[in-house]
Amino acid sequence: MPDNPSAQQSRWKQAVYQVIFEADTHAGQAFDITLLWAILLSVLVVMLESVQSVNQQYGPYLRALEWFFTILFTIEYITRLVVVRRPLKYAFSFLGIIDFLAIVPTFLSLLIVGSQYLLIIRTIRLLRVFRILKLSRFVGEAAVITGALKASRHKILVFLTSVVAMVVITGTLMYVIEGGQNGFSSIPQSIYWAIVTLTTVGYGDISPTTTLGKALASVIMIMGYAIIAVPTGIVTAELSRPYQKSYKHVICHVCQATEHEEDAAFCRKCGEKL
Amino acid sequence: MPDNPSAQQSRWKQAVYQVIFEADTHAGQAFDITLLWAILLSVLVVMLESVQSVNQQYGPYLRALEWFFTILFTIEYITRLVVVRRPLKYAFSFLGIIDFLAIVPTFLSLLIVGSQYLLIIRTIRLLRVFRILKLSRFVGEAAVITGALKASRHKILVFLTSVVAMVVITGTLMYVIEGGQNGFSSIPQSIYWAIVTLTTVGYGDISPTTTLGKALASVIMIMGYAIIAVPTGIVTAELSRPYQKSYKHVICHVCQATEHEEDAAFCRKCGEKL
Amino acid sequence: MPDNPSAQQSRWKQAVYQVIFEADTHAGQAFDITLLWAILLSVLVVMLESVQSVNQQYGPYLRALEWFFTILFTIEYITRLVVVRRPLKYAFSFLGIIDFLAIVPTFLSLLIVGSQYLLIIRTIRLLRVFRILKLSRFVGEAAVITGALKASRHKILVFLTSVVAMVVITGTLMYVIEGGQNGFSSIPQSIYWAIVTLTTVGYGDISPTTTLGKALASVIMIMGYAIIAVPTGIVTAELSRPYQKSYKHVICHVCQATEHEEDAAFCRKCGEKL
Amino acid sequence: MPDNPSAQQSRWKQAVYQVIFEADTHAGQAFDITLLWAILLSVLVVMLESVQSVNQQYGPYLRALEWFFTILFTIEYITRLVVVRRPLKYAFSFLGIIDFLAIVPTFLSLLIVGSQYLLIIRTIRLLRVFRILKLSRFVGEAAVITGALKASRHKILVFLTSVVAMVVITGTLMYVIEGGQNGFSSIPQSIYWAIVTLTTVGYGDISPTTTLGKALASVIMIMGYAIIAVPTGIVTAELSRPYQKSYKHVICHVCQATEHEEDAAFCRKCGEKL
Repeated sequence: MPDNPSAQQSRWKQAVYQVIFEADTHAGQAFDITLLWAILLSVLVVMLESVQSVNQQYGPYLRALEWFFTILFTIEYITRLVVVRRPLKYAFSFLGIIDFLAIVPTFLSLLIVGSQYLLIIRTIRLLRVFRILKLSRFVGEAAVITGALKASRHKILVFLTSVVAMVVITGTLMYVIEGGQNGFSSIPQSIYWAIVTLTTVGYGDISPTTTLGKALASVIMIMGYAIIAVPTGIVTAELSRPYQKSYKHVICHVCQATEHEEDAAFCRKCGEKL
Repeated sequence: MPDNPSAQQSRWKQAVYQVIFEADTHAGQAFDITLLWAILLSVLVVMLESVQSVNQQYGPYLRALEWFFTILFTIEYITRLVVVRRPLKYAFSFLGIIDFLAIVPTFLSLLIVGSQYLLIIRTIRLLRVFRILKLSRFVGEAAVITGALKASRHKILVFLTSVVAMVVITGTLMYVIEGGQNGFSSIPQSIYWAIVTLTTVGYGDISPTTTLGKALASVIMIMGYAIIAVPTGIVTAELSRPYQKSYKHVICHVCQATEHEEDAAFCRKCGEKL
Repeated sequence: MPDNPSAQQSRWKQAVYQVIFEADTHAGQAFDITLLWAILLSVLVVMLESVQSVNQQYGPYLRALEWFFTILFTIEYITRLVVVRRPLKYAFSFLGIIDFLAIVPTFLSLLIVGSQYLLIIRTIRLLRVFRILKLSRFVGEAAVITGALKASRHKILVFLTSVVAMVVITGTLMYVIEGGQNGFSSIPQSIYWAIVTLTTVGYGDISPTTTLGKALASVIMIMGYAIIAVPTGIVTAELSRPYQKSYKHVICHVCQATEHEEDAAFCRKCGEKL
Repeated sequence: MPDNPSAQQSRWKQAVYQVIFEADTHAGQAFDITLLWAILLSVLVVMLESVQSVNQQYGPYLRALEWFFTILFTIEYITRLVVVRRPLKYAFSFLGIIDFLAIVPTFLSLLIVGSQYLLIIRTIRLLRVFRILKLSRFVGEAAVITGALKASRHKILVFLTSVVAMVVITGTLMYVIEGGQNGFSSIPQSIYWAIVTLTTVGYGDISPTTTLGKALASVIMIMGYAIIAVPTGIVTAELSRPYQKSYKHVICHVCQATEHEEDAAFCRKCGEKL
């Protein structure tokens, strides 16, 4: 195998790819941990910038740090695009889009000038918090949970739909009962109250004052308390599944034993080939 | 087969039936999705009408839209009655009644005149929100959840009864402890507080101020936190069932034993061949 | 068998016993339902008496009804004592004591005179609400739930102990952090806050104001949100057990098949006697 | 066996060890129960001392009791160090450190003098509340729960990470939507609100006032209500495991296959006798 430039470049690319995209090598692990800290720090900087007292004192430093992290993540993003085999597929993958959204807002704040747009710019800038989603790259166990949630997504949707129907109806009833008074000023407002109550959050910014209203609220609360069992039951049943080994329905032709594990090649009773 | 008018009419009815009642054909699916949007929009119109600022500006438009949707749903309801095989059975089925209740209030608001009854009329009109229940027609997975809830309804009833007994007793105790002060002005009021607390909603409109009251409240809270496990356990156990061993519904013709395992060839009670 | 008076009396006793203590006959069911309504109405009377506006208007009627129900339940209690085989055993059983406590307070309010003791008398009178516990007599399904709770009582105790340790420590930390200010005026008070927070009740009567306090509160909240999984898991695992059929570890001496159901007398594979 | 002093001492040590560290003998049980009460009382003393009204009246008595318990626990700690086989290993074990931390603060309050450090001293003193953790010594059933939590710690970490990411993003969005008003004064503050809401605690000290804010809050609440199913499902699935099939920890000496069923006599992979 001749060591031509193209092959060398390809080998170099693969080495960088292993460091950036994989975590099997020591270098790859070090990169991931560094990235993790950089993300956490950059998120912290955005947070601190929003605290008025901190911003007044350390504003310029925070903005400098913000630019430092943005440039760092830009280099990282470009490197990812270069070393990955299919750049376009990466760019339009979920993580690729998140990586892109994590650097764009800082640059956007430069292009759009004008104090009257400041608030909107800040809105876009704050999207950089999506950087934190990169954290999911570091956890592999998430697959089991997301798998269970995916498998039960239809049931959860049904549950959420009935919850929405429930809060719309109870919210409307409450609006009628309280007569548009005591914070129940409109149906959407009353629905908001119904959600706050059914989910057992209970801010207390709006709470029923009439006797009938309190009676209905009591019913909603106990209902909310009881039906939380439904999503829990759905997810639990799904998560319990992997532990219930699946068996193949093969009967050993020698000893007639059944319930052989999926990957069994020999009967666990008599050692005969299945 | 002669193409007589009666047969033609019957065929036409069946075609419409397939579009309206079923979702297997393209036309049926399109109808269902249109209906879904119409229901959502009509509910939105009712909601917006209750928001004072919106009602003042767009009131006539909203009322026009309301009439538009009411007429639409009336046509739909009549069509359903015409094409269904047993119109009476449909009219008195759960969905038939909901379909009827979804159109009646708007017409009722015409018949009953007089400003003093306005509020009551509005009450009846708001029942149109029940339209949203039609949504349940679009989800088939609901069967598993409602099945699990139905199977565990006795246990849930027992649970709810003991919760009610609990809140009545603790509410009364709290009324005595707080001495009718600090919002605990009567037993029903104290029971309302107990429900708000046990279900972990916690509005904060009423909260104990005496030391003994806070101690009792703490006990109720921890109790409420722990016993939420009961309905969850009930529903989860029920939802986990389908994943477990299935039995064939074969009754042994000799000893009447039931619940034979799927792979059983002989009755496990009397040894007779199944 | 001669129809002597003693045998006749015994027969009469047994008939009354069947009506009062059992629910198999039509008369027994009618009695149970009448009793249920009498209990509910008497509880309602006690509740209404505590509502000041109602008491001022209907006070005498309510007190008359109270006496009516008390005499009714006294007759019932005496009849129970007469017809039951072992009166003492009944009198000191849980339900017997509740039956007794349900009638005593009204009589006690007669004996103790003096306006200054009024409040205390009311306290004892309110114990009649324990009548509601009689409701448990009407539900048989409760056995499964109480069985699961009994089986998991040790685990729940461990869980509650660790919850108590948790709230004591976090409450104390919070007292130190908030420096005895903002409602965190003492350790017991702060522990009360910790319970309100950990159980996700969240009244809002006390809430942290310092940054460190809010950070600690956030940790407690997420902790409380996550550890609710523990009692739920305990009870669910217990409730799921009955559905997991138990098998006897018997291997068929003919076909070597295993996993025979507990009540199997013959091998479900080859029909051989086990 | 000659009864030399060293052997006698060793025997004496072992007897004391059995009383202090074990709970099999009557003396050991009595010691444990005495210790339990001493810990509870000493914690109560610390609590009462923080209540201003109690401290003003009984301050000296409480401080005396505090010293009494501190000396008691000091003697206990030294005895433990003397009788245990490996004193260092005990001293640096979790319970050893807790035992030490439970006595240090009272002594520290003597060394550091000066009214300006008073608050800090109180902080350290309050650490004695860690004594309550000793309670865990009395419960053996905790192993199952901690085992299940340990087994699912990776999944719980993933869950907590996604919860943190969720509250950071929603908190930031809320800060932008509410425009730094109504208590949403900074991103950390808004994240605190998001935690309060997602965990369904809902103090109500901060609550959205804009329509868009309420809409987002509703989404977070329903989300928080639904995703509580995840940790519950994880722990339940883990706790249900012991009731399911157990495998013997035998590795096939031919093909290294693991997880053989309890009743397997032959490797299900290669047919080799186990």
